[in-house]
Amino acid sequence: MENITKILFDLFLMYACAKGMGELFERLKQPQVIGEIIAGILLGPYLLNIVPLTEFYKVLAEIGVIILLFTIGLQTKVDEMIKVGGTALVVAVLGVAFPFVFGYLYTLIIAHQTIEAMFIGAAMVATSVGITARVLADLKILDSQVAKVILGAAVIDDVIALIVLAVVTGLGKGALSYVKIGLVLLEAVGFILFLIIISKRVLPYFAPKALNLFKMQNAPFVLAILLCLGLSFVASYIDLAAIVGAFMAGMVLAELNLEFRLSLKAESLYDFLVPFFFVVMGMQVDLSVFTHLNIIGAALILTLFAILGKLLGCGLGALPLGWRSATLVGVGMVPRGEVGMIIASLGLSMGAISGDLYSVVIFMVVATTLLAPLILRRMIIKSPQLEKGKNLNG
Amino acid sequence: MENITKILFDLFLMYACAKGMGELFERLKQPQVIGEIIAGILLGPYLLNIVPLTEFYKVLAEIGVIILLFTIGLQTKVDEMIKVGGTALVVAVLGVAFPFVFGYLYTLIIAHQTIEAMFIGAAMVATSVGITARVLADLKILDSQVAKVILGAAVIDDVIALIVLAVVTGLGKGALSYVKIGLVLLEAVGFILFLIIISKRVLPYFAPKALNLFKMQNAPFVLAILLCLGLSFVASYIDLAAIVGAFMAGMVLAELNLEFRLSLKAESLYDFLVPFFFVVMGMQVDLSVFTHLNIIGAALILTLFAILGKLLGCGLGALPLGWRSATLVGVGMVPRGEVGMIIASLGLSMGAISGDLYSVVIFMVVATTLLAPLILRRMIIKSPQLEKGKNLNG
Repeated sequence: MENITKILFDLFLMYACAKGMGELFERLKQPQVIGEIIAGILLGPYLLNIVPLTEFYKVLAEIGVIILLFTIGLQTKVDEMIKVGGTALVVAVLGVAFPFVFGYLYTLIIAHQTIEAMFIGAAMVATSVGITARVLADLKILDSQVAKVILGAAVIDDVIALIVLAVVTGLGKGALSYVKIGLVLLEAVGFILFLIIISKRVLPYFAPKALNLFKMQNAPFVLAILLCLGLSFVASYIDLAAIVGAFMAGMVLAELNLEFRLSLKAESLYDFLVPFFFVVMGMQVDLSVFTHLNIIGAALILTLFAILGKLLGCGLGALPLGWRSATLVGVGMVPRGEVGMIIASLGLSMGAISGDLYSVVIFMVVATTLLAPLILRRMIIKSPQLEKGKNLNG
Repeated sequence: MENITKILFDLFLMYACAKGMGELFERLKQPQVIGEIIAGILLGPYLLNIVPLTEFYKVLAEIGVIILLFTIGLQTKVDEMIKVGGTALVVAVLGVAFPFVFGYLYTLIIAHQTIEAMFIGAAMVATSVGITARVLADLKILDSQVAKVILGAAVIDDVIALIVLAVVTGLGKGALSYVKIGLVLLEAVGFILFLIIISKRVLPYFAPKALNLFKMQNAPFVLAILLCLGLSFVASYIDLAAIVGAFMAGMVLAELNLEFRLSLKAESLYDFLVPFFFVVMGMQVDLSVFTHLNIIGAALILTLFAILGKLLGCGLGALPLGWRSATLVGVGMVPRGEVGMIIASLGLSMGAISGDLYSVVIFMVVATTLLAPLILRRMIIKSPQLEKGKNLNG
């Protein structure tokens, strides 16, 4: 029982600090989400050490980010995603290629290790769609074409990142199976295509009648949660990130969203659970490693490459949307997140990368996470024409 | 990452089984909550052993029951509770005295141990308000006077149970401090009175203006969650059950409920989180200990005393409401829950009670939990006059 008392205290403190800092940042006209991350840095084991970084909070954070992507998915109709699909694919591929090459070459120059360079390159690949989606949602422009390209590309680059991870891990272990790479690719593409077909061909005709058969209260919302948990599990099981499944679950249900007020109901889960994700992200930041000048230098240079890689790669891919939209897409893809951290920690545990380079990757993840929302918000507020459903150039 | 895959699978399975069994029981015209508990028995370590009973799920269950009591509290106005306060107090006191004496005397007869008898008596005292509140909510009669007496008495008997626990633990350790007993009592009563004053004198004048100062989205709901987490922690910290704090948080906000649509927003949290509480309760049931005839006999007799104790004690206390309402209150107070289990496991760990008697207490908790909703539902459905806000005799 003492255990539960401490956990309730922690939860209260995390939630209070997240919302308090969020409120402060909102008043400073900055993204609330940065306030929530800073709340985590403050409370976490590396600074004030008030809240321990336990397995429980990590899982709670995972549930939070699942709810976040599910909510985003609910507002993303399949048709609109297909419309931007071609652009998103090009944005994703170029947005993977540029940062990988930048990270690979830079590490090769400073560390002379091919495997280490591969890992650092891989860690620079995956966009953290959670951060960007949150900023887009806070600014209420999820409906814009730019937002749709960013979300589509982020889902695709998550898939690519996991294939890159499979390749790099294979190289790290000294053995590389083409069969495994093919399998990951096949599973990921099959999963996404299957869900798109279900949502277009089956659900619209079947769901409204089926829902009437249930006697329980709030059946549509209960079944939506069930689908969200189920697809998050499936995505995680086939080695995709769980959040890809959560996003797909939301997208599959997007057509039914208005009729059954799913977004409205999911909003409460969002208010309660999502802040814990950003607080826990902040709790994992160790500021103390950056006391050595050469590590600070490497961290700054890698961060610069991480930003330039997405800006050039994704911007180039989004050029058909016009110069201004392309820049927005480029900036929107800059934040890295948990996938980058996971790849780096995997490399560390396999002995493929050094502790110093691990810290450098973590810095890059945090810096891109903190910087991108600031720039994105500033750019979007300066673009009053970027209203709901409108393309900047359309 | 494999860890999170398994957890997502477990969460999906727990939620799916809870809702599936709930739907089945709804169709059988039985309380959904029993379906959810049975889902837990099926999945748990003692039967199919699919979902492990980890610390994570126990905490998730605790958050679930906190949300449950918070939601109930939101629908319970302070004025109406004060109106039934006198009756609730008498119901609570008699409902503690009768089961304690029954349990004490029966254990003394079969086991001849005073300390053991004290522990068993104490374990029979506390009503599990969660179960009854859920049944009352499912039947949509939370507004009735009977429901208010039950909820008020359950909160009071939780306080008394914790004082009894303090006394019995003191006896078990061989030393008993009157100061400590006084302190627990003072803290509990002070906490509740303080909150009632805040909710009557401060909040109605202060809250609507204060809420306008916030810039964040959904500020009223966010602050309601904060209050719920905060008071749950405080209640837990002063050795009350956390759910007493959650209930009080809801009750304090009940006056603002309609204006800020708090119940409506909390409903989504309820739909997502509350089922995990009942599933985890079911997961803790070990059916295998009941293979010895004498243990089955003792379990049945103790269960009978547990039912009679509340029926007679609480029924007697509620007699001023009329015979029929008194019976409903008596039955509504029958379910025991986690407090009974905690007292029993404490006695076991202190060597004050035997393993067999521990199993007997667990059986009593489970049996009262499963039986009471069945009887309550049957009685309420047969009482069509028990409509919102109406007393059976008024």
